[in-house]
Amino acid sequence: MKIAIAQINTTIGDFYGNAEKILAYARKAKRRRCDLAIFPELAICGYPPRDLVDREHFTESNLVALDSVARRLPSNLAAMVGFIDHNSSTTGKPLYNAVAVLRDGNRVSTHYKSLLPTYDVFDEGRYFEPADRVTPVILNGLKLGVTICEDIWNDKHLWRKRLYHQDPIEKIARENIDLLINISASPFSEKKQELREQILKEIATELKVPVVYANLVGGNDSLIFDGASFVIGSDGKKLAQAFDFEEDLIVFSVETGVGDFRPICAEPIESIYKALVLGTLDYCRKCGFKSAIVGLSGGIDSALVACIAAEALGPRNVLGVTMPSPFSSKGSTEDSEKLARNLGIGFDTVPISPIYRTYLRCLAPIMKKRQADVTEENLQARIRGTILMAISNKFGHLVLSTGNKSELAVGYCTLYGDMCGGLAVISDVPKLMVYQLANYINREREIIPSPIFSKAPSAELRPNQKDEDSLPPYRLLDPIIRMYVEENLRRSQIAVQGFDPKLVDKVVRLIHVNEYKRQQAAPGLRVTSRAFGFGRRCPIAEKFRGGA
Amino acid sequence: MKIAIAQINTTIGDFYGNAEKILAYARKAKRRRCDLAIFPELAICGYPPRDLVDREHFTESNLVALDSVARRLPSNLAAMVGFIDHNSSTTGKPLYNAVAVLRDGNRVSTHYKSLLPTYDVFDEGRYFEPADRVTPVILNGLKLGVTICEDIWNDKHLWRKRLYHQDPIEKIARENIDLLINISASPFSEKKQELREQILKEIATELKVPVVYANLVGGNDSLIFDGASFVIGSDGKKLAQAFDFEEDLIVFSVETGVGDFRPICAEPIESIYKALVLGTLDYCRKCGFKSAIVGLSGGIDSALVACIAAEALGPRNVLGVTMPSPFSSKGSTEDSEKLARNLGIGFDTVPISPIYRTYLRCLAPIMKKRQADVTEENLQARIRGTILMAISNKFGHLVLSTGNKSELAVGYCTLYGDMCGGLAVISDVPKLMVYQLANYINREREIIPSPIFSKAPSAELRPNQKDEDSLPPYRLLDPIIRMYVEENLRRSQIAVQGFDPKLVDKVVRLIHVNEYKRQQAAPGLRVTSRAFGFGRRCPIAEKFRGGA
Repeated sequence: MKIAIAQINTTIGDFYGNAEKILAYARKAKRRRCDLAIFPELAICGYPPRDLVDREHFTESNLVALDSVARRLPSNLAAMVGFIDHNSSTTGKPLYNAVAVLRDGNRVSTHYKSLLPTYDVFDEGRYFEPADRVTPVILNGLKLGVTICEDIWNDKHLWRKRLYHQDPIEKIARENIDLLINISASPFSEKKQELREQILKEIATELKVPVVYANLVGGNDSLIFDGASFVIGSDGKKLAQAFDFEEDLIVFSVETGVGDFRPICAEPIESIYKALVLGTLDYCRKCGFKSAIVGLSGGIDSALVACIAAEALGPRNVLGVTMPSPFSSKGSTEDSEKLARNLGIGFDTVPISPIYRTYLRCLAPIMKKRQADVTEENLQARIRGTILMAISNKFGHLVLSTGNKSELAVGYCTLYGDMCGGLAVISDVPKLMVYQLANYINREREIIPSPIFSKAPSAELRPNQKDEDSLPPYRLLDPIIRMYVEENLRRSQIAVQGFDPKLVDKVVRLIHVNEYKRQQAAPGLRVTSRAFGFGRRCPIAEKFRGGA
Repeated sequence: MKIAIAQINTTIGDFYGNAEKILAYARKAKRRRCDLAIFPELAICGYPPRDLVDREHFTESNLVALDSVARRLPSNLAAMVGFIDHNSSTTGKPLYNAVAVLRDGNRVSTHYKSLLPTYDVFDEGRYFEPADRVTPVILNGLKLGVTICEDIWNDKHLWRKRLYHQDPIEKIARENIDLLINISASPFSEKKQELREQILKEIATELKVPVVYANLVGGNDSLIFDGASFVIGSDGKKLAQAFDFEEDLIVFSVETGVGDFRPICAEPIESIYKALVLGTLDYCRKCGFKSAIVGLSGGIDSALVACIAAEALGPRNVLGVTMPSPFSSKGSTEDSEKLARNLGIGFDTVPISPIYRTYLRCLAPIMKKRQADVTEENLQARIRGTILMAISNKFGHLVLSTGNKSELAVGYCTLYGDMCGGLAVISDVPKLMVYQLANYINREREIIPSPIFSKAPSAELRPNQKDEDSLPPYRLLDPIIRMYVEENLRRSQIAVQGFDPKLVDKVVRLIHVNEYKRQQAAPGLRVTSRAFGFGRRCPIAEKFRGGA
């Protein structure tokens, strides 16, 4: 039996497009003489459909599209296609996260997801009823176990505490299967692929069968699915590997144990870069934007975002705009212009001083001669945001916001100012990782001008301002944020790693009191294990603030 | 046995404050010779704590506070107090949503929630393990059934399809209890209290015992808990009633069947008004704001928000600012000033024309003589937003945004413009309901000047602009939005109610394509059965758009 893993990039609710893509890949699989083509989780409707599944019309369209695929598949090719099924029982959630085995115009069998992730960015318990049984399917004389994503993530050897009461893999182990299949929509985060391989090796060697893992590829709002589908043999060795961050079709022969091998990112920083490029491209593409605009401050964050945008959309579709104020250094504008030239993107300058002065004059009567403070700094950021939005409105470019995770964590950013934008490209990238990515971009030649690396981070919103006037150095800030936000450590646990307890208290307090800003932030591409946004749900009005 | 329902307003994570409040109400109950005081769901830690519960320190503090309450309760008074308990099992979610029965320094018993709402604004399946059994507690010789909120919402007589496989009420029915208690954190929405009474009557008459319902009161971000706790006798008659929208302690005697009766809102519109006032007050109070600022456009939306703010915070703590542009009518400023005078709030004027002209001049080179379009309209809105934020930054007033649900649904609002603000007071109030609320405010005397009612709705962003130039009349728009967003009807189902199918298509398309704006909106107070925001989770990048 030859199996094709069809690692496709689906779009939520694009039933026509998804069905046509499934059929195109099925034909590719047929041309490569495959017996079975496997598609990712919820391939028919796209992932994650969220509350759209509550609309009858959505689930019906998904069933119609599934039927259409079944009827039009090449003959003698079986396909496993993810879709949403109705739960006809009078109790429980109304839907199942399902996979259909299709062949020669018929649905051979239907399998439901047993374990429904309801944590972090996942809300599957909100929509779906869990399967209460696991049924293998026999194809070409082989008995195949069929699982969906989370179904393989409850292994008792891997977790100290298991989230679920049932383990579909334990059930399948009793079925004497020849091969285990898992269709997934597993989003990228740092080092996720290592974890996937570890889990699949554990299962393949435990069950003593090969495991075929078909993952989704593509960006959907904050989530980036990295693909990188693979096959693990019963001895734990990898037998096939698909590309990461792009569509692919790879073939694996069950009999010979031989499969296609594509190269994937060797370095973690390369995979984060590719994730951000794919996330930016797909957000634009799936929302109908062909071009983007980035405010270039002369700093490393906006430089990185411009590079990612140029790679994703092509340099001719990116416009960099520098908006100098009375407090901008001459170097900032020059560095921005040089960056734009190196990238080949468009470049424009809109000085904000006349607008800034007019605001100050108009506001003077109401401000009653109070001293300058953060008000005037925010004002400059908001003028810049307004200018970018005006150009966006006039020409249809998507505004990409340039704030990083460190800033967003502690609120070192201006709501309706530098936070303006449809997509926050690096809002899950801590500042130190921003530098790593910038170095990665410059690995062969200087694209980001060197002064952008060497200057001290500054918002340039008042004379001689430096980030470190308000914030601890990023080499201290970043690990504190990571331990508090990603690892959920408490303040004392962070301090004993060698961080001044007062500093830890300050950072934790800032993280809490700035929740209101983050709730109005643009969706941000997720690349760490815990991003701000949909996967981290905090009240604004709360008095915990990290604890007493 | 005399039972006190202590309907308190808790704050999330304020363990000290919540514990002291519980003790103060326990002493009140003791003074009224009660044997038992009942507090709302998760009274110790506040509701909904969301991902804060993932922090060890949060749940530990909640257990410490519970112990402290147990030790300090008046003697011979039992108390039922909601808290978060650990799940010590090695499988399943790590926490329980729990209630402790405390008496004379001891925890008499602990009861867990069986049904965990995971839909709309609720995420309890994300955090909690469901109880698998229901155990009554015996106090003063009476056998009491103890349930938490959703536990009573799975009645087979009320729902066509039941969400849960177990029904704690059926289990309790076999226990021969004398009384059923339910502690809740049930958020307000239109006509919710009618539904609660219907459910409790069904259960009381089915089980043939009185049911005591203790609900939370107070605002927490988007959610407004209305209190209105009550007791239903075994014959289905109401035996006691607490205030709605304020803290209260009412007493009910099991032996005599006699309880306190407070008046609650008679009219739906009055309850919506009170909900908005409480939601605004509590957001400010719990976030540490004493004053608010509202941009007064001369229209009905901002007038309504100013009235709500004045009622919530006191007129002296509210500042109205009118920001006339070249397109503002003279009437708009005059009406705004008159409104401010009627309310007794502060009033200021900041004309935006100089700033607007400076922007146009600075942007001219980049705009390349393109015709005026929505860009210039948004620009005015963003200047106003920036001015309000500057005043907010300087003086510490919270900016209240003034957009209504109809606008937010179809995107008739400017991101970073009129959408600026920390709280969107009426973002769940459809335009026609805005008028109803304004009429309610004017029921005794003219507070909102009559021209504000009679003028045609207009954004005043270009000469002679009217909302109806871009949008259908609100008498058509509002019901279409309600049917699509709240009732999840499909387009054909809406059209057959007598709405032009093309108009329905247009509105539905607008609802979908403007999801990106709503995801950056300020938290909005929820008053309908389905608000935009946390309880409605939609992808931005999607091609369903209401279906083909």
